[in-house]
Amino acid sequence: MTTQVAGETLPVREVGERRLDDYAPVVGEEAIQELRSLALPLLGKRVLHINSSPDGGGVADILAALVPLLNDLGLKAEWRTIKGDALFFDITKKMHNTLQGEPVAWDRSMWDTWLRCNEQNAQMLDPKHDVIIVHDPQPAAILHYLNQRHRNGATKWLWRCHIDLTDASPEIWRRLQPYIRPYDAAEFSMEGFINGDYTGPRTFVCTPGIDPLDPKNLPMDPGTAREILAVFGIDCDRPFMAQISRFDPWKDPLGVIDAYRLARAQVPGLQLVMIGPIAADDPEGMTFFEKTARRAGEDPDIHLLTSFKGVGDREVNAVQTLAAVVVQKSIREGFGLSATGTLWHGKPVIAGRAGGLCLQVIDGETGFLIDTTEECAEKVVMLLKDPALSVKLGERAKEHVRKNFLITRYVRDSLLVYRELLEENTGQGSADPPS
Amino acid sequence: MTTQVAGETLPVREVGERRLDDYAPVVGEEAIQELRSLALPLLGKRVLHINSSPDGGGVADILAALVPLLNDLGLKAEWRTIKGDALFFDITKKMHNTLQGEPVAWDRSMWDTWLRCNEQNAQMLDPKHDVIIVHDPQPAAILHYLNQRHRNGATKWLWRCHIDLTDASPEIWRRLQPYIRPYDAAEFSMEGFINGDYTGPRTFVCTPGIDPLDPKNLPMDPGTAREILAVFGIDCDRPFMAQISRFDPWKDPLGVIDAYRLARAQVPGLQLVMIGPIAADDPEGMTFFEKTARRAGEDPDIHLLTSFKGVGDREVNAVQTLAAVVVQKSIREGFGLSATGTLWHGKPVIAGRAGGLCLQVIDGETGFLIDTTEECAEKVVMLLKDPALSVKLGERAKEHVRKNFLITRYVRDSLLVYRELLEENTGQGSADPPS
Repeated sequence: MTTQVAGETLPVREVGERRLDDYAPVVGEEAIQELRSLALPLLGKRVLHINSSPDGGGVADILAALVPLLNDLGLKAEWRTIKGDALFFDITKKMHNTLQGEPVAWDRSMWDTWLRCNEQNAQMLDPKHDVIIVHDPQPAAILHYLNQRHRNGATKWLWRCHIDLTDASPEIWRRLQPYIRPYDAAEFSMEGFINGDYTGPRTFVCTPGIDPLDPKNLPMDPGTAREILAVFGIDCDRPFMAQISRFDPWKDPLGVIDAYRLARAQVPGLQLVMIGPIAADDPEGMTFFEKTARRAGEDPDIHLLTSFKGVGDREVNAVQTLAAVVVQKSIREGFGLSATGTLWHGKPVIAGRAGGLCLQVIDGETGFLIDTTEECAEKVVMLLKDPALSVKLGERAKEHVRKNFLITRYVRDSLLVYRELLEENTGQGSADPPS
Repeated sequence: MTTQVAGETLPVREVGERRLDDYAPVVGEEAIQELRSLALPLLGKRVLHINSSPDGGGVADILAALVPLLNDLGLKAEWRTIKGDALFFDITKKMHNTLQGEPVAWDRSMWDTWLRCNEQNAQMLDPKHDVIIVHDPQPAAILHYLNQRHRNGATKWLWRCHIDLTDASPEIWRRLQPYIRPYDAAEFSMEGFINGDYTGPRTFVCTPGIDPLDPKNLPMDPGTAREILAVFGIDCDRPFMAQISRFDPWKDPLGVIDAYRLARAQVPGLQLVMIGPIAADDPEGMTFFEKTARRAGEDPDIHLLTSFKGVGDREVNAVQTLAAVVVQKSIREGFGLSATGTLWHGKPVIAGRAGGLCLQVIDGETGFLIDTTEECAEKVVMLLKDPALSVKLGERAKEHVRKNFLITRYVRDSLLVYRELLEENTGQGSADPPS
């Protein structure tokens, strides 16, 4: 829910309360105590997170848990979202895609629109905070415009990048980087996500994490899951493999169908469930969904579950609960939070060797990393034929997530970063205006 | 464009100007003269059309031409649209579907919403007109609420129904009919569209018509058409058959694909183009589109052209211009205005024996009426193998539309209806409140 404050301020995203103590049964009392002691030097510190979207997507999921947990630890944390019109968000979506390596036609007026909107948002920002964390490129130039107005030297600024910049268009990155340079630090999801041309401020690495108390990550009763999936014609008395992801080329849904066909030749009766959102206002998404549907053909054992069939978190949870095997056959991947959710359900994941999947899936331990469709099919068959192996890997998968990819670990990293920034004696970062 | 007038009036839909003389080259000077003389007794008469949608769909197309032509004839014609919220339009969409024979769960609160919105719109209506034409069920109860307030006895009220009521849910029709009864007359697109239970006022029949000067109905240069279709991967050096329609079960897109496959067995290299709108906010439409795509499979010679690929009137015109054969394999059809457009392009249509298609397609003269997929395929092959026959039927098709289904004929019928209503001596219709 976005509350728009009267006057010229950025809208506050209300987040309600979360109690860290509720996480003790999941991560242990010791981890909670560590967080409390790490937070001591930060009590009362004002921390502001700024991003572009109040709902939907991994960043909003993280902030919805992180911000109230920081408050429970005694910080004064707040989350605000920027304002922009449809044109701005269209442009920043293109910017996002370009930074992920997709070629996009770019022109000067797009930069102008981006900068103008950042300037307007900078004017709506009250900069009196101890730490301000700006997420992703959309609002990245806000600091530049605050610099021009007045920059409060006591405030530490962190640019939090959730994107894999490895294949970013050099031209776009060169234009963006001057707006990153004045930050005190930048934080990335993985070391490997940092662009080779990066010349910005010091960097931190902080992998994403999921909230184990979010309903979508809570264990679901199998009976409930069966009821949910029966609506879509899935026969839960026969095994199904699943991929949970958008229908876009980087997730290789066509390859998933091919792998299913290879596997089914050895495991008769196998079904395939592909479940993911599809934005009606995303023509490319729709076009690729059509491609997927046409590859699927009229095989009644391939089930495509998408937004327009009313599919959401509940259905994803049901699939994670009942799937015999889950694949994430990505060719390129940011971190891959849906795989994290699957591993947390105690299911191994057969994953493409891409982005954060390589951190999550330890080959032969928490799942399998694969490079080809044939390999994918082979591992699917292996797990289908050896349920005991599946259970063993699944247990390790869950422990791997518990240790490394829960929101409490993200809170811990965040506290460490804020402390390090605030303890710095180097004062503010370079405030050179971008050329 | 909807202009919202200040205060409590219905929004005016501005329509610009059209000159009847511009239609003389298409329909002949004589037809124009006839219209002018029919209009003489109506000079200065105030005619108001009310419908629910300023754009999109056959009714808006008709009004966009009819209203300015009535003005050019010396009447004072106006078009206004009703106001309603999303809930109202959701309910009237369901009402529309029920009246066309689809079972829809209906409850009392839906009627209440419908009536309340009609009452509000009645309050925004200035009833000082000579003739008020209310289109379709959405605003049908406006007259009822005017009756309750004050009904100007001099005004003649016409309910214009564009829906085929043959299979209307008896329950819904019984609830709707009392709101139709106070009208002076009702007008239907075809005699056969009148519900068997109809006990309303006297009826007129007036088939729809297309505007030959609308860009989508103007002849397109074949070179331009080739360029437009090449973008979608259509090979214009090989023949293609086409269906132009929404992706819904009543248009039988799956049967079209089957017919194409049968025909292609005899005409190697044949392509199929299915072109139609798909509303992103219409889950049923999306789900049926998926079914269609899956029936199509990966046949590269089946081209699905839909809204999310940026398809609109220009692409439809290009298809009508270059298709070797056009089918309209509907199982149920209102009037079928896209078939009218195809016939007007000088192309015969192979049509399912449904609704208005039976008026437009004279079997063996302007196309073929078919009952089965096999018959459809057979006629497709016949036309593909006999281009001379296709040309001959196409010429007749165009003349058939010129005589019967152009907007000028609709204007003529409308003038006759207004005259007959205004010449009546019976005074106002029954003003009994619906029970």
